[in-house]
Amino acid sequence: MPVTGQLLIGQSRVRGGHGEVHALAAATGEALAPSFGGAGPNDLERACALAESAFDRYREASLEQRAAFLESIASNILALGDELIERCMSETGLPRARLEGERGRTVGQLRLFAAVVRDGSFLEARIDPAQPERQPLPKVDLRLRQIAIGPVAVFGASNFPLAFSVAGGDTASALAAGCPVVVKAHSAHPGTSELVGQAIQQAVHSHGLPEGVFSLLFDAGRSIGQGLVADSRIKAVGFTGSRSGGVALMKIAAAREEPIPVYAEMSSINPVLLLANALAERGEAIAKAFVGSLTLGAGQFCTNPGLILAVDSPALRAFEAAAAAALKEAPAQTMLTPGIHASYCQGVERLLRHAEVDCLGQGGDDERYQARAALFATSAEAFMARTELREEVFGPASLIVRCTDAAQMKALLATLEGQLTIALHLSDDDHPQARELLPLLERKAGRLLVNGFGTGVEVGYAMVHGGPFPATSDTRTTSVGSLAIQRFLRPVSYQDLPQALLPQALRSDNPWQIPQRLNGERPR
Amino acid sequence: MPVTGQLLIGQSRVRGGHGEVHALAAATGEALAPSFGGAGPNDLERACALAESAFDRYREASLEQRAAFLESIASNILALGDELIERCMSETGLPRARLEGERGRTVGQLRLFAAVVRDGSFLEARIDPAQPERQPLPKVDLRLRQIAIGPVAVFGASNFPLAFSVAGGDTASALAAGCPVVVKAHSAHPGTSELVGQAIQQAVHSHGLPEGVFSLLFDAGRSIGQGLVADSRIKAVGFTGSRSGGVALMKIAAAREEPIPVYAEMSSINPVLLLANALAERGEAIAKAFVGSLTLGAGQFCTNPGLILAVDSPALRAFEAAAAAALKEAPAQTMLTPGIHASYCQGVERLLRHAEVDCLGQGGDDERYQARAALFATSAEAFMARTELREEVFGPASLIVRCTDAAQMKALLATLEGQLTIALHLSDDDHPQARELLPLLERKAGRLLVNGFGTGVEVGYAMVHGGPFPATSDTRTTSVGSLAIQRFLRPVSYQDLPQALLPQALRSDNPWQIPQRLNGERPR
Repeated sequence: MPVTGQLLIGQSRVRGGHGEVHALAAATGEALAPSFGGAGPNDLERACALAESAFDRYREASLEQRAAFLESIASNILALGDELIERCMSETGLPRARLEGERGRTVGQLRLFAAVVRDGSFLEARIDPAQPERQPLPKVDLRLRQIAIGPVAVFGASNFPLAFSVAGGDTASALAAGCPVVVKAHSAHPGTSELVGQAIQQAVHSHGLPEGVFSLLFDAGRSIGQGLVADSRIKAVGFTGSRSGGVALMKIAAAREEPIPVYAEMSSINPVLLLANALAERGEAIAKAFVGSLTLGAGQFCTNPGLILAVDSPALRAFEAAAAAALKEAPAQTMLTPGIHASYCQGVERLLRHAEVDCLGQGGDDERYQARAALFATSAEAFMARTELREEVFGPASLIVRCTDAAQMKALLATLEGQLTIALHLSDDDHPQARELLPLLERKAGRLLVNGFGTGVEVGYAMVHGGPFPATSDTRTTSVGSLAIQRFLRPVSYQDLPQALLPQALRSDNPWQIPQRLNGERPR
Repeated sequence: MPVTGQLLIGQSRVRGGHGEVHALAAATGEALAPSFGGAGPNDLERACALAESAFDRYREASLEQRAAFLESIASNILALGDELIERCMSETGLPRARLEGERGRTVGQLRLFAAVVRDGSFLEARIDPAQPERQPLPKVDLRLRQIAIGPVAVFGASNFPLAFSVAGGDTASALAAGCPVVVKAHSAHPGTSELVGQAIQQAVHSHGLPEGVFSLLFDAGRSIGQGLVADSRIKAVGFTGSRSGGVALMKIAAAREEPIPVYAEMSSINPVLLLANALAERGEAIAKAFVGSLTLGAGQFCTNPGLILAVDSPALRAFEAAAAAALKEAPAQTMLTPGIHASYCQGVERLLRHAEVDCLGQGGDDERYQARAALFATSAEAFMARTELREEVFGPASLIVRCTDAAQMKALLATLEGQLTIALHLSDDDHPQARELLPLLERKAGRLLVNGFGTGVEVGYAMVHGGPFPATSDTRTTSVGSLAIQRFLRPVSYQDLPQALLPQALRSDNPWQIPQRLNGERPR
């Protein structure tokens, strides 16, 4: 099935009639065929109505059926083969190896959620049996399970056109939870979105699921995305993107007659702390690894290391020199969109002109739409006084902040906003300092890491890709890893229901063989 | 320690200098000695500063220490003996047996959370070990645990002066999670609040915990409560009360620089569905039980049955007659406060005068501040057309809605807002209808119950006291039962941390012997 430019609404494909979205080749800015018809209010209405009508049936599909459906989406994506990779390369400028890796991650993520669904722990099944003889009052029979929260709106991200987009973590975890999904495609990769959407549409069909389980809308402006979040049938929102975009959706959701949760993953500069002994012992090696992480994927990672903190010393200056040297070797890279490239250039320009910032070095330069990596340095005083220095520059730019001592570094950390990740580079002799910092760091970020960089995000059981605001809108969860399913669930308790009326998950004969917590005892 | 009228700020007791809160005897409206000094901005500042400074130490207290602390609070409350019960009786007008029962529940709740803490499952410990040989990239070591979200503001409720107040479910679950708590006392029972606050203050001291773990503030206006929610050191809010009060706090929390979660349990009319066969077989018995539930505690339960739905029939009319007869026997009861009594009278008056509402009967009448139970009936058409008929009348009043058929009843249910509970009265022959209704009911309420009423709220592992907006502000959780601890937690992931720097919960030698999910396998 080729790219057609059509909306996918349930099992239909229709040409949107409200403006057009044009895919642009990231490397040249030229329009790619075809154009994509923007959705209008009727399309939105139909997608939401279908999602609503699919909800009760889909959420009660058996665990096995839901898991097999997720696995089919994965196979269908793989079956798109090179057409998907090539379309995605043109639209995003990302290289083949990266996109093949990202496809593997996306498919692995769908399969992980299939395993999570089969395991059934996410249902939190609990049974507190009746005690008719209890004094002074008999105790009723109470059973609890998690049910799907309702239809979910998902906003694809520009920077991971597969893993955080149409069939990305938000969609996978919402479908795993039993929620129908309406995706607002990111306009930076509409063809990729359509292809992946077709893979999901097909899986819905082949598993005999109600068609409203999935729809994909293109939006030529902002009204469809905003309308989705405002629609009373939508019960939660997944978003990855800019702080301003996320905050706008949070406001719409909070102003609804029935406010709903928004899971927006937004802004993070991902501080990297270089502790003194590590810096002295292996500053040069860290510098090389740092530049590798900084320039990976043209720096277009939510977890890109945008801030380096260290106590000023000859070792730090040696680190800076080594990093600047490595940076010089880093070739320019195509950014995801002309717009993202323009913002990056502005951000770098702002730092280049800043009176209190030194430019330590830049990477290779090239033609338009190619990002040139850049490394800056400033003092802790300047950083603490100037809020503009802590704004994320999306792309391969980073700022080193030179602190006068460990106490100043800690004081600076305390002023930072919430982050997705904080990295510590340390040696054994740095443990006392690390131990002192950890409680503060835990409060600032969703993931702490030692002797590495946050750019690799494992999709597993123990990953947190989240953090305090503004890293995300809701610090209680994660958008990557198996725990992400909890975002789309709510608990319901059943009191004295006859076995015949109980959901499968809570019946005493446990037909699904899932873990049930009986009288508070851990299930075995 | 007698009631002094002082604020409890950490381990200090200070007289608030910003206005006064007067305890009123619920039965007479007369002021009770002493008066309570209202907190000012400095008191708020000090309580928040202490909570903040206590946070890192308290959240890392061992599970055993935290559990023992909760148990000491329970014993200290019991040790207050009759002084607490008598003070509470004067302030609330609730009878001794009810308050002794509520004290038992409050103490049981603290002990339940002690058990939850010792069990350690709430930490969600997960370990995905490193795989250095993995291709194409080695896998890092990742470990996840839940940590306490931060200092929590708790607003006591008027209607459960023990179980939903100073040491109620919000406080117990927040302390269990590792969060310091600042309570804004409800002005309907300030003496009760102070006594219970002293019990907590004492337990903080005897366990050698940092004093900021607990503070109690009286507020002569609204500025202290609002200031608490707005304070940047407070990271979550627990509230039980009116819809307007809860929504006001939600707005303050959403408008903060860093928005925070608000767990407000607000408004519910708790529909009761009488299915045809049950009504025909045992309508009279249900009517008697219904009136018992309606008038329990003067109807001042969040889960009070405020709405009865049934298909009109001779059996329904017989139910109505039986309920009206039982109601006539129900004596008048003192309400919690003169203000609550006045609101109740207004609500009843509104229904009495409503052109489309019949009054089926009223309970006994008595002197002022005593509530007279009331039962009304209307048609489904009127109920669907008139939004004022679905507003909660807090107290012993209920409205029967006569539907023309089962389809109309279902259509009406679909228009309802979120509820804490929905009850079904059914016989075996009603199972098909119940089965058809259940998916809709699950989406409308946090707890579904069969052949009972929602007024009993068990504190256990399988209880959900929650539900979609406006029953609560956050349908993803519960304010009663062990799951309530999840409201005050957030996940943090640790990547490649040396064992020496890992928290106890995540060390490979598992010194706390808690369940750890290894590679996604269920812990045994």
